Amino acid sequence: MPELYDVAAIGNAIVDVIAPCTDAFLGENGLTKGAMMLVDPKASAALYSKMAQAVEASGGSAANTIAGLASFGGKGAFMGKVADDQLGRTFAHDMRAMGARFENKPLVGGPATAVSMINVTPDAQRTMCTYLGASVEFTDSDVDQDVVEASKIVYLEGYLFDAEAARRAFAKAAAFAHGAGRKIALTMSDSFVVERHRGGLLGFIENQVDILFANEAELLALFETSDFDAACEQLLRRCDLAAVTRSEKGSVVLSKGETLHIQAERVEKVVDTTGAGDQYAAGFLFGLSQGRPLADCGRLASLAAAEVISHYGPRPQVSLKDLAASKGL
Amino acid sequence: MPELYDVAAIGNAIVDVIAPCTDAFLGENGLTKGAMMLVDPKASAALYSKMAQAVEASGGSAANTIAGLASFGGKGAFMGKVADDQLGRTFAHDMRAMGARFENKPLVGGPATAVSMINVTPDAQRTMCTYLGASVEFTDSDVDQDVVEASKIVYLEGYLFDAEAARRAFAKAAAFAHGAGRKIALTMSDSFVVERHRGGLLGFIENQVDILFANEAELLALFETSDFDAACEQLLRRCDLAAVTRSEKGSVVLSKGETLHIQAERVEKVVDTTGAGDQYAAGFLFGLSQGRPLADCGRLASLAAAEVISHYGPRPQVSLKDLAASKGL
Repeated sequence: MPELYDVAAIGNAIVDVIAPCTDAFLGENGLTKGAMMLVDPKASAALYSKMAQAVEASGGSAANTIAGLASFGGKGAFMGKVADDQLGRTFAHDMRAMGARFENKPLVGGPATAVSMINVTPDAQRTMCTYLGASVEFTDSDVDQDVVEASKIVYLEGYLFDAEAARRAFAKAAAFAHGAGRKIALTMSDSFVVERHRGGLLGFIENQVDILFANEAELLALFETSDFDAACEQLLRRCDLAAVTRSEKGSVVLSKGETLHIQAERVEKVVDTTGAGDQYAAGFLFGLSQGRPLADCGRLASLAAAEVISHYGPRPQVSLKDLAASKGL
Repeated sequence: MPELYDVAAIGNAIVDVIAPCTDAFLGENGLTKGAMMLVDPKASAALYSKMAQAVEASGGSAANTIAGLASFGGKGAFMGKVADDQLGRTFAHDMRAMGARFENKPLVGGPATAVSMINVTPDAQRTMCTYLGASVEFTDSDVDQDVVEASKIVYLEGYLFDAEAARRAFAKAAAFAHGAGRKIALTMSDSFVVERHRGGLLGFIENQVDILFANEAELLALFETSDFDAACEQLLRRCDLAAVTRSEKGSVVLSKGETLHIQAERVEKVVDTTGAGDQYAAGFLFGLSQGRPLADCGRLASLAAAEVISHYGPRPQVSLKDLAASKGL
């Protein structure tokens, strides 16, 4: 099977509704700052009615990563489920407009396309309330074997651990990928996801994951510790390569041979951290897919994260390829 | 009638779809850079399929101005027509989330909510293709007499001169406003609108308009001249107060007593000029409604325009009230 794609991803297909808010607003609406909370359509509508003027932009964690990869010039494919509605068409347009493959048929007669209500506090932290709608109707029959086998890396979004059908889809994708000699990457997505599925995640990481993405909170939650170094050590026993992000403290790239400390790229003004982790993964995976040294992968990752937090919205607004070139990468 | 609103506006209720593009893209699609072109749903869909990944944000020229006014802390009302669909609900949410009044019933069983496909070139110029949809179903029966009579200034969007029913609505609004001792403001919107309706616009300005907003190209088109000073002189014979914007050259405020030259506010990086004129009008009208001197009105206008061109999207992303305060305004 020829390598047609640098990265194929499976994730929730979501359109984001992004608005500024105060810290008090989070408290009044029972929201935990920085977290992702699942809501039903009624709670989603109730929250929306209280939110400030918003902008809408295609989102979804792994989908954002594929958009970032495409912006670097990488070839990406995305698998996920939208409904046959306005937001579903928006999501599909945006994926294809980046040059990424997105061919899953929209869901007809079921729930609407997923939306995430994202409130951004003045410190640029994003707090998300997601109505998963059609996106949880993704099943293993939506995993395209040809695409998986033709991708250097298959990237899985940890948020999907909340749905049993998606966990089966992950298992299927991992089997196809490893059968074709490809790599499996996973992002842990959210520390509450880790809390809900610790056992399942640990097993999946140990058995199937070659490359793991996590932020510090997620890593500590996974091993139920507050000792960062101990958690890193535990992780390395279970997978070959991991990148752990630590916000403005930069990131740590862990591999059997070496531990690299990557500095965060300087940002003039942090506006909205939505998509920071997703774009970090985009840069890192793009570097890996091009056979670049791990230090370069980390720098590409930091560069993409810095771009996306300098404006509202979870995807790059400039060409990451040009941006990397301007930095000698 | 008490003064309940600082400004009430009548305009097209539009949701913007904003994407970056190259200059070549404009040529390939027969688009005139910087202009607004009307398209049918088929042409709109065809253009969208070729556009880059986009963000969606509520727009509409006069609606953007009301959003800006509200961001300054002013009390605004908007009159316009959306359809009973997803984008119509988005538009209504965003208007009300700013604290502005928007009570026109959505259109049922007719065309969809208006969308404007906005392509932004690397020089930050915006080129618009608008499908007017439900917005042209606005008629004089949608003009709320109570709101008009309770507003210090009634602001009319020149784009609506393309629709006969809207011209009748303008006439009705002007009659109510002047009957209650209120002011009528008009923006000329676009030089092609001026070309199409020169006679009607000149008559309306002379008979009904107290405050006129135009950019340089629109003013020159109105009087079919290339002599800026001559055009200003002609304009002052027809209305009491006018603000003429000249992009990075700043603006000129014309009144019977004096001519003020207002400097453009410095912008670090101009990203997207969509909404520049709308936010200029927001600052100026807010200043006027608060009884501020014309020089202050001009500075507030420039400040709001500078904020909106520093990011994608036609409306402010920060509190203009706080921004003005930080500049001693």
